[in-house]
Amino acid sequence: MKNKGLRGVDAGETSICTVGEKSDSLHYRGYDVVDLSENCSFEEVAYLLLYKKLPNKDELRKFKSRLKSKRYIPEQLKEVLERIPKSNNPMDVLRTACSFLGNLESEKNFDNQFDCSERLLAIFPSVLNYWYHFSHSGVRVSIENSSDSIAGHFLSILYGREPNETEEKVMNISLILYAEHEFNASTFAARVCAATLSDIYSCITGAIGTLRGPLHGGANEKAMELISKFDDVESASKAVYKMLENKELIMGFGHAVYKTQDPRNEIIKKWSRTLSEGKSNSKLYFISCEIEKIMKEEKNLFANADFFHASAYHFMSIPTKLFTPIFVCSRISGWTAHIIEQRLDNKLIRPGAKYIGKDPMSFIPLNERS
Amino acid sequence: MKNKGLRGVDAGETSICTVGEKSDSLHYRGYDVVDLSENCSFEEVAYLLLYKKLPNKDELRKFKSRLKSKRYIPEQLKEVLERIPKSNNPMDVLRTACSFLGNLESEKNFDNQFDCSERLLAIFPSVLNYWYHFSHSGVRVSIENSSDSIAGHFLSILYGREPNETEEKVMNISLILYAEHEFNASTFAARVCAATLSDIYSCITGAIGTLRGPLHGGANEKAMELISKFDDVESASKAVYKMLENKELIMGFGHAVYKTQDPRNEIIKKWSRTLSEGKSNSKLYFISCEIEKIMKEEKNLFANADFFHASAYHFMSIPTKLFTPIFVCSRISGWTAHIIEQRLDNKLIRPGAKYIGKDPMSFIPLNERS
Repeated sequence: MKNKGLRGVDAGETSICTVGEKSDSLHYRGYDVVDLSENCSFEEVAYLLLYKKLPNKDELRKFKSRLKSKRYIPEQLKEVLERIPKSNNPMDVLRTACSFLGNLESEKNFDNQFDCSERLLAIFPSVLNYWYHFSHSGVRVSIENSSDSIAGHFLSILYGREPNETEEKVMNISLILYAEHEFNASTFAARVCAATLSDIYSCITGAIGTLRGPLHGGANEKAMELISKFDDVESASKAVYKMLENKELIMGFGHAVYKTQDPRNEIIKKWSRTLSEGKSNSKLYFISCEIEKIMKEEKNLFANADFFHASAYHFMSIPTKLFTPIFVCSRISGWTAHIIEQRLDNKLIRPGAKYIGKDPMSFIPLNERS
Repeated sequence: MKNKGLRGVDAGETSICTVGEKSDSLHYRGYDVVDLSENCSFEEVAYLLLYKKLPNKDELRKFKSRLKSKRYIPEQLKEVLERIPKSNNPMDVLRTACSFLGNLESEKNFDNQFDCSERLLAIFPSVLNYWYHFSHSGVRVSIENSSDSIAGHFLSILYGREPNETEEKVMNISLILYAEHEFNASTFAARVCAATLSDIYSCITGAIGTLRGPLHGGANEKAMELISKFDDVESASKAVYKMLENKELIMGFGHAVYKTQDPRNEIIKKWSRTLSEGKSNSKLYFISCEIEKIMKEEKNLFANADFFHASAYHFMSIPTKLFTPIFVCSRISGWTAHIIEQRLDNKLIRPGAKYIGKDPMSFIPLNERS
């Protein structure tokens, strides 16, 4: 059928984001993501997405203070998290935590939508790291710390120490790069849910479950699996040529919308290099560069946002299984902005389907069935 | 914009269902829902949706036996359910239970999709009624009973006694009528999620959250609220004329796809009448008929599947807040069939959006913002 996967079909209007409009660029509410990542904290970007303007100093201070006050995990939610074993997909953990929180702190009515959005923005780093430490080492970590940023808060609980300046900087940049991407599958799932006028926890729960799929989130985890297989640039090169010969899929390259480049790649690649300096496993950066070069030469495919995120996160000692959940901690800003936008000019999203099944048939009683 | 809400746009192919194709009829895999509701148990219909054929006696026996063995609630899930208070929306409970179960019994790979579908089909009545009794009266009800049907199992736990023949019959019919409806919003949400190749628990969790919205599920609860306001047919008549004058919305009428009738209405209306006989509150049936008549005469709107479900459920002593959750216990059959179908010929569902926001802007440093 034409337009399979609704590719190229406008499913709604938005003023939040452009992806690949006028060359392969990414803009959040009119601002280039390159400028934002170089000059902003993640909180400024989340504020921009939610409140449609870059915050001034006073607005930013108040916003960060509200977020800090919304990091705590209710006892009942801790009890639920403690019942989810180590072996689980952490995306299932976040999906369940979001759904359960919707029971404890239901949205009640849409007047609470900004409050709830800030609550989710603030709590996911707490939830993820609390579950991670409890399930992996049985420790009930404190989620109290002096950091006044989401990036700093996240790394402080993960590390059990304050992050250094570069670590916090790169975390901010990463959260900015993943914050928003127009009608991608998880955002669209959130809007389909929002369009029935369901509550924000339902919408976000659905979005997390959708991001969980390997065709959406998870490419950075796959990239990590790949690059960590190799001892050096040469063996990586050989193996990747072999994979291409065998028509194996190499994750972290190309994009459904961008044609010539992913504007986020240069940014995270630069920081991956900076982070690699002096690290014992700095080869991972050079292995990544080699694979990028081969993919360009052999397949004319460019590295997307995910590919150098793998090595960058790894240099920051982030466990691979937390890569996609960090995507959630970031994209929650875009998801909530889209839910709020959908509600403002809503119509139920109810497409049709092309029927390719059987013609009407006479009923067959139970006794006569083969 | 044109096609707002994707109305009239084919978002994929299906062989599961036709809604309103060739007159206002509803067919599941080629069989008319009128025939199915008159002649089948819900299990036969669920089997048809999942396995593409009506089961013969042996297949049906085995299917029911598998479902019976999959009704139990794991202890950890009971512990989660016991932490959700009475005041909560039971749709939040089912959404959370489904998500949590995805942690305990993850799908692992798609070879397990039929097993997982049957598990969800079997467990929702247990989960819903267990939570309902515990939160409302502090009792940990047994979910063991001799019934070999989903309808009988549901009513046995709810009532704490075996249902009579008519009650079980109507429950079966109701589950059949709500089982499947093509690309409605919740099913479409499930397919958007499935198209990222996410797991079945994520897809169903998203679908439940989407059905939760008042523009999708919940019309039968609203209809109940309406009809239970009136003491007799006359006062109902007066009040409804008044509501129409005030342009108030009356739920349970009209349909996005059907033009002249909802084929499910006549069926459930007939059973509402049967159930009303001898009941002290049988007036609710006649009040419903009066409102149906007025809506036809004044607005040319027909009663849809939801309207007479309100009185029918009420005559069966089903608490109003469980009406939409019963929709889940039924529609899970259609949702899972659609997820399985989506996976067979998958493409990521990633539409575009019409951008109506700001043109690209220069970045403004924090110090210079107003």
